[in-house]
Amino acid sequence: MSELRGACIFGQSGGPTSVINASAAGVFTEAIKQDCITKVYGAAHGIKGILEEMFYDMGEEDSYELELLKTTPSSALGSVRYKLKDVEVDDTDYKRILEVFQKYDIRYFFYNGGNDSMDTCNKISKYLQKSGYECRVMGVPKTVDNDLFGTDHTPGFGSAAKFVATVTMEVFLDARVYDIGMVTIIETMGRNAGWITASSALAASKGCGPDLIYLPERALDLNKFIDDVKAVYDRTGKVIAVVSEGTKTPDGRYIPELNQDSLHVDAFGHKQLSGVAVFLANEVKNRIGCKVRGIEYSLLQRSAAHCASLTDVNESFSAGQTAVRAAVEGKSDFMVAFERAPGANYVCNTKLVELSKVANFEKVVPDEWITKDGNFVTEDFVRYAMPLIQGESAPPMEDSLPRFARLKKVRVPKL
Amino acid sequence: MSELRGACIFGQSGGPTSVINASAAGVFTEAIKQDCITKVYGAAHGIKGILEEMFYDMGEEDSYELELLKTTPSSALGSVRYKLKDVEVDDTDYKRILEVFQKYDIRYFFYNGGNDSMDTCNKISKYLQKSGYECRVMGVPKTVDNDLFGTDHTPGFGSAAKFVATVTMEVFLDARVYDIGMVTIIETMGRNAGWITASSALAASKGCGPDLIYLPERALDLNKFIDDVKAVYDRTGKVIAVVSEGTKTPDGRYIPELNQDSLHVDAFGHKQLSGVAVFLANEVKNRIGCKVRGIEYSLLQRSAAHCASLTDVNESFSAGQTAVRAAVEGKSDFMVAFERAPGANYVCNTKLVELSKVANFEKVVPDEWITKDGNFVTEDFVRYAMPLIQGESAPPMEDSLPRFARLKKVRVPKL
Repeated sequence: MSELRGACIFGQSGGPTSVINASAAGVFTEAIKQDCITKVYGAAHGIKGILEEMFYDMGEEDSYELELLKTTPSSALGSVRYKLKDVEVDDTDYKRILEVFQKYDIRYFFYNGGNDSMDTCNKISKYLQKSGYECRVMGVPKTVDNDLFGTDHTPGFGSAAKFVATVTMEVFLDARVYDIGMVTIIETMGRNAGWITASSALAASKGCGPDLIYLPERALDLNKFIDDVKAVYDRTGKVIAVVSEGTKTPDGRYIPELNQDSLHVDAFGHKQLSGVAVFLANEVKNRIGCKVRGIEYSLLQRSAAHCASLTDVNESFSAGQTAVRAAVEGKSDFMVAFERAPGANYVCNTKLVELSKVANFEKVVPDEWITKDGNFVTEDFVRYAMPLIQGESAPPMEDSLPRFARLKKVRVPKL
Repeated sequence: MSELRGACIFGQSGGPTSVINASAAGVFTEAIKQDCITKVYGAAHGIKGILEEMFYDMGEEDSYELELLKTTPSSALGSVRYKLKDVEVDDTDYKRILEVFQKYDIRYFFYNGGNDSMDTCNKISKYLQKSGYECRVMGVPKTVDNDLFGTDHTPGFGSAAKFVATVTMEVFLDARVYDIGMVTIIETMGRNAGWITASSALAASKGCGPDLIYLPERALDLNKFIDDVKAVYDRTGKVIAVVSEGTKTPDGRYIPELNQDSLHVDAFGHKQLSGVAVFLANEVKNRIGCKVRGIEYSLLQRSAAHCASLTDVNESFSAGQTAVRAAVEGKSDFMVAFERAPGANYVCNTKLVELSKVANFEKVVPDEWITKDGNFVTEDFVRYAMPLIQGESAPPMEDSLPRFARLKKVRVPKL
């Protein structure tokens, strides 16, 4: 494969994670090292920054601040939820991207995101190829939801799982303080895949976890749910149930829809969910008549870098690094993925999967990892997830508060 | 002062904190060392365990597990919210306590709690004295709310402040990811005192904090609140407002009361609050019409031992230790308190304050530490609180999840 000289651009897309910037650090530090990469740009707000020529010159950043990106949560360059139209319907955006890439001689495009973003990558690459513009396109995976196809797990999931497991252990102890009955309903992220919700089982494996776990992979029948809670409550007086925000009733409605008339819908047609814990806590209170608590871990799940998994930080960094190396070696139209080596000890290798195979597929929790009753997960899940939360990332501190990266964000003048 | 030989008992009361068991560790390890203390009992669920003779023999615990109590959140012995009646109204409980203390030869009583618990301590001690039963009674302070009179700060507050400051920094970054307007309303604990809420200013001192802070010390006028939010929103497009759960409107109603008909009231007549963030987020959405988020840090504020302040852990341990030493030396009817030494460097000394002076007084945030507009705190608060969050307690890990104490809890046979 011949050497391709030119600039590279990296963008972040979709919901952030605790470790999304670790991948950025991997891309930037590796790209800066490569002779064939003449300029390293960061796109402000992903594809939107490309369309609007809002670039940062990453070569201007201090290497220490780039290093700090590894422990700085949330998309440092800004993210976006912007869906490209199908090229047959409207090719305006594609033309514009080609124009911008030509103007800045961008020959490497790295895009960090989930399902939708891999689709975006794929569409852009196909258009550039058709137009005869040589550009290597690589996807860097990212999502707390762990629902990407073709990879053992996704960067971001391990840290979300570690936070959920850790605070669930703490909530477990808190729920046992008084000698009165208490039902605690915890709501976790996860629209269609229950990986984050299931990770509360890691707390259970340490004897400080939930009694019941409900994933969106199975419908939640409200009467059965109340029966499940009541059975544990009658036996022990204490119940912790963890429920995914995306759990639906057998008739296909989201839990909060049982209470609300309308829900906000985002650009991808995803409904904005909330209120599962509060709704179910009220149901339990009214039907069982006991003391209840509803807790929503909210966006701490995706932003609590102070509790990130070191394994996740290192793998996320490595995913960014691998994307650059592979592209420089001539690869294009792939997403970096993780492959678990066989054997008792956890070893994670990177591999490349075709973007077209990843885009728009969702990987859910395997049916056989969910218990027959649909209210817990099996040991197989714990064996799968436990290695992913190992190690503490320990961000550098300043006055005992995390010292997050402070990028200069030097704007590239528009050509 | 003559030596007093006999058993000691320690109980935990009220809402737990991340470091409440550090004080227990201080009491137990010190009491076990003392020759004049013949038995070390732990009361199950505080005063309730005493009334019902439900004691644990703490001398039976492994020293390693007692050490682990320092980093284990939530009351390991169980807590209670039980209000003793005035002795003139009904002395049944007091008679019973005297009877139990006599039966087990309990000569040292250590009680860990907040305002109400110091009142309980004081009442019991007065009754025992009047009955001619020699028993030394010491209060060990504890409350995330930091509202105890007579002490520079309370064990538990520093860790709550550290958690709130840390996750608010993370939420700050998360809120800046998209290039669209966004208002985030964060609800923190604090019924009548705004110390926890104010600690979000520590995040602001690092450039990653809220724009607006509302303490329960000042009434919140809903129209003024909306104007405050709108002013920041119009200027920057991003707003983070932190509001205490206990904030009231000028006519004396709690914020969620504007929306709800009834609120649950606990044994002390405290209203159980919730829903401030959700209520205010809806108001902002309806009146300003922007994208909003409501986040409740919920009980993670008092249980997130994984993010505890090492200073707080050590001081909490020392408070327990000091209580035992002072009692053995002949002191009674005091609460251990903290005194900050004068000078630029933070040095915290323990002192003793009379229980009668502490009981039922609430220490609120000084008026001069709240800005004139009532929507932020001054630098003085930051200077006060910053030393209290220093150091990471770093609980020992097992599979990268916290290894919390596993007490044997050997029940003492009833006599």
